[in-house]
Amino acid sequence: MFVPRDLETARAVAFLVTVALTPAVALAQTDPLPSWNDTQPKAAIVEFVEKVSKEGSADFVPEPERIAVFDNDGTLWTEHPMYVQLAFALDRVKAEAANHPEWATTQPFQAVLEGDMKTLADAGEKGLVELIMATHAGMTTDEFQKIVSDWIATARDPRFKRPYTELVYQPMLELLAYLRANGFKTFIVSGGGVELMRPWVEQIYGIPPEQVVGSSINTQFEMRDGIPTLFRLPQVNFIDDKAGKPVGINEHIGRRPIAAFGNSDGDLEMLQWTTLADGEQFGLIVHHTDAEREYAYDRQTEFGRLDKALDAAAVNQWTVVDMKTDWKVIFPSDLK
Amino acid sequence: MFVPRDLETARAVAFLVTVALTPAVALAQTDPLPSWNDTQPKAAIVEFVEKVSKEGSADFVPEPERIAVFDNDGTLWTEHPMYVQLAFALDRVKAEAANHPEWATTQPFQAVLEGDMKTLADAGEKGLVELIMATHAGMTTDEFQKIVSDWIATARDPRFKRPYTELVYQPMLELLAYLRANGFKTFIVSGGGVELMRPWVEQIYGIPPEQVVGSSINTQFEMRDGIPTLFRLPQVNFIDDKAGKPVGINEHIGRRPIAAFGNSDGDLEMLQWTTLADGEQFGLIVHHTDAEREYAYDRQTEFGRLDKALDAAAVNQWTVVDMKTDWKVIFPSDLK
Repeated sequence: MFVPRDLETARAVAFLVTVALTPAVALAQTDPLPSWNDTQPKAAIVEFVEKVSKEGSADFVPEPERIAVFDNDGTLWTEHPMYVQLAFALDRVKAEAANHPEWATTQPFQAVLEGDMKTLADAGEKGLVELIMATHAGMTTDEFQKIVSDWIATARDPRFKRPYTELVYQPMLELLAYLRANGFKTFIVSGGGVELMRPWVEQIYGIPPEQVVGSSINTQFEMRDGIPTLFRLPQVNFIDDKAGKPVGINEHIGRRPIAAFGNSDGDLEMLQWTTLADGEQFGLIVHHTDAEREYAYDRQTEFGRLDKALDAAAVNQWTVVDMKTDWKVIFPSDLK
Repeated sequence: MFVPRDLETARAVAFLVTVALTPAVALAQTDPLPSWNDTQPKAAIVEFVEKVSKEGSADFVPEPERIAVFDNDGTLWTEHPMYVQLAFALDRVKAEAANHPEWATTQPFQAVLEGDMKTLADAGEKGLVELIMATHAGMTTDEFQKIVSDWIATARDPRFKRPYTELVYQPMLELLAYLRANGFKTFIVSGGGVELMRPWVEQIYGIPPEQVVGSSINTQFEMRDGIPTLFRLPQVNFIDDKAGKPVGINEHIGRRPIAAFGNSDGDLEMLQWTTLADGEQFGLIVHHTDAEREYAYDRQTEFGRLDKALDAAAVNQWTVVDMKTDWKVIFPSDLK
């Protein structure tokens, strides 16, 4: 589906029209979250949204302050068996290998080219940063945007054999639309590279590039033959993860969200920043419990680790979504 | 006036309704820019807006891509006799002097307390940074927001004896509204501190905090007695000026604007980045030529210097506003 930038306007207008033309009772019967089972999470979401968006409600929040932030990997789309960003980096190393003969004998590039995941894993974060810098920097922002757009259009998930953009969670797409229809402004706040998300998030999530907060590398403005360019440098600018998420939210959005949605310890501080404040807030954690339809993981794996955040959810009454029991379908393609 | 965050939606809806109910001829007769004289700048603005927003036009630009960026100091409000940010810093030094007895004998603080502008000027950029750090850091983001809100509500411009928020340019307020009514999303891209603008821009300009790009210092997330806080550190994070403006635009907005409005050499690269690209773009420079109603300056003064940008305007066909001849009124209070 293509979702234009003025989706919020369109949805808002459509919603207002619906309200104006539909008897309240009929409206009450329409289900804004059809892919959610009628369990606690769905009820908690609807109760919160009605509470803050109803004029005259004691917990009413003015529309400008209805800011909702969403983690991306593992919250809006699949992050297993590896972050899509890493899949992109590995594909780029293979695609660029011919231009870098030295990679055949240099780690971690050699491991990537030989498919030696063990050695790659042993390279750790240092090796990962090397891969990211070698594949994400050294070109203009326009060039990188084209590389990402071309890749996301052709890359396929190894298990589901489908484009990564089809491995988004249908219940979360409905949640994004439901929030926007109720005057919320929806943002992505991800540890992933912001430039890797922006080329496709608008079409898939209906979230415009300017409402995406993410990790970034430094860029430098240069006039080249009279043409202004932004050149991507192999230097980390900002890591939008863990304690960096509230920092990124404050720097980019400039006001505190009232709803936050995540799935791992990387989202803990974002959930704390959002919910531990005056007024009404909502925090939700997507718990991956469905090995059959997607994946099951948290405490048992280093991947998308969910030790602290799950414990904090109990303490802070954040809603925890059990994917297996709370979601009727996982992906849009599951819709009958 | 209070302008809600959903101003864009409201304006868009109002505009659509107007279009639907008003004969084209009548609509054509309404003037969206009443405070602009019928000179070249106004004609150029209207021609551009109609060109890019008219369905079927060869130069039509989809609404999501109608991004307009505005410098703040000297473009949307008065920057003479000193940047409002500096006025804020000087006032804060005086207000905090009792808590810093050492300032009485330490420069540049002593100069501020003694009103010795000569010594203050001699302290240069190094002294300025010291003043900024001493007055903008060392508290939480919530505390700083309150300090700014209290200050902007009571501070007065020395010449006009009015709140700085009344020294915004009426023609530019009309331009902001006109662009939004035609599907543009308006952003501020200023060299000023982003946290100094966000508390009041929404009410004055109808621009929400999340659409303000500016200079910033580092913040650090901390849980204090179970309460999440962002603490402002005395470290520069980003200077959103000159070649930094395209960098800030790309990092924050993530797509290239099609219209840019500035008034000094600090806006040169932003204007280049916006206008020297494929498709239709618009660049405009506010030239301060009205010593009687506001100020007259550019090449003759180090302040708001306009050497390169004015020359580039001629080369790149950017529109240059001569405040004296092109604007009927300067401030909202001038409206009869």
